Amino acid sequence: MERSDVDASLDFERPEDDVEYVDVNHNLERKFGLRIRHLRTSVDLSQEELAFRSGLHRNYISDVERGRRNISLRALDKLARGLGIELRDLF
Amino acid sequence: MERSDVDASLDFERPEDDVEYVDVNHNLERKFGLRIRHLRTSVDLSQEELAFRSGLHRNYISDVERGRRNISLRALDKLARGLGIELRDLF
Repeated sequence: MERSDVDASLDFERPEDDVEYVDVNHNLERKFGLRIRHLRTSVDLSQEELAFRSGLHRNYISDVERGRRNISLRALDKLARGLGIELRDLF
Repeated sequence: MERSDVDASLDFERPEDDVEYVDVNHNLERKFGLRIRHLRTSVDLSQEELAFRSGLHRNYISDVERGRRNISLRALDKLARGLGIELRDLF
């Protein structure tokens, strides 16, 4: 098994995963991540640039965009400031 | 010192608290808490009723309304569903 196969297998949703988690919550974070990516690319910012403006780590931005983070109110506020928009317009 | 004095002293902001935390972040959570209380009372729900509809604990709702919680995306989503509104309208 090559290294890339191992990495890919980590992303695979296991059948034993909680169904509600996979269907509802995980979708929530994925949908929000796509929204953030859309907002970021709309204003022509790289993940690094948004990270710098938001005071968040570049890896954190990447995680959020891939739906891997259950982001908190404070981080949402930082993201909104970094994007130059209101909190409500993140959604 | 009576019991009520002890309770009150727990709310008092200590001078050694980080200034940015008190001025910016704590205000963010307080402002959000007031917003949630406003939205909840606008539709005539008690904290217990909103807790039941949201699938969150009553004490958690109380903490959020008092600005004591850095609420997460998933909990925000539950609150919005409990209030019957869109996520963006929480802000």
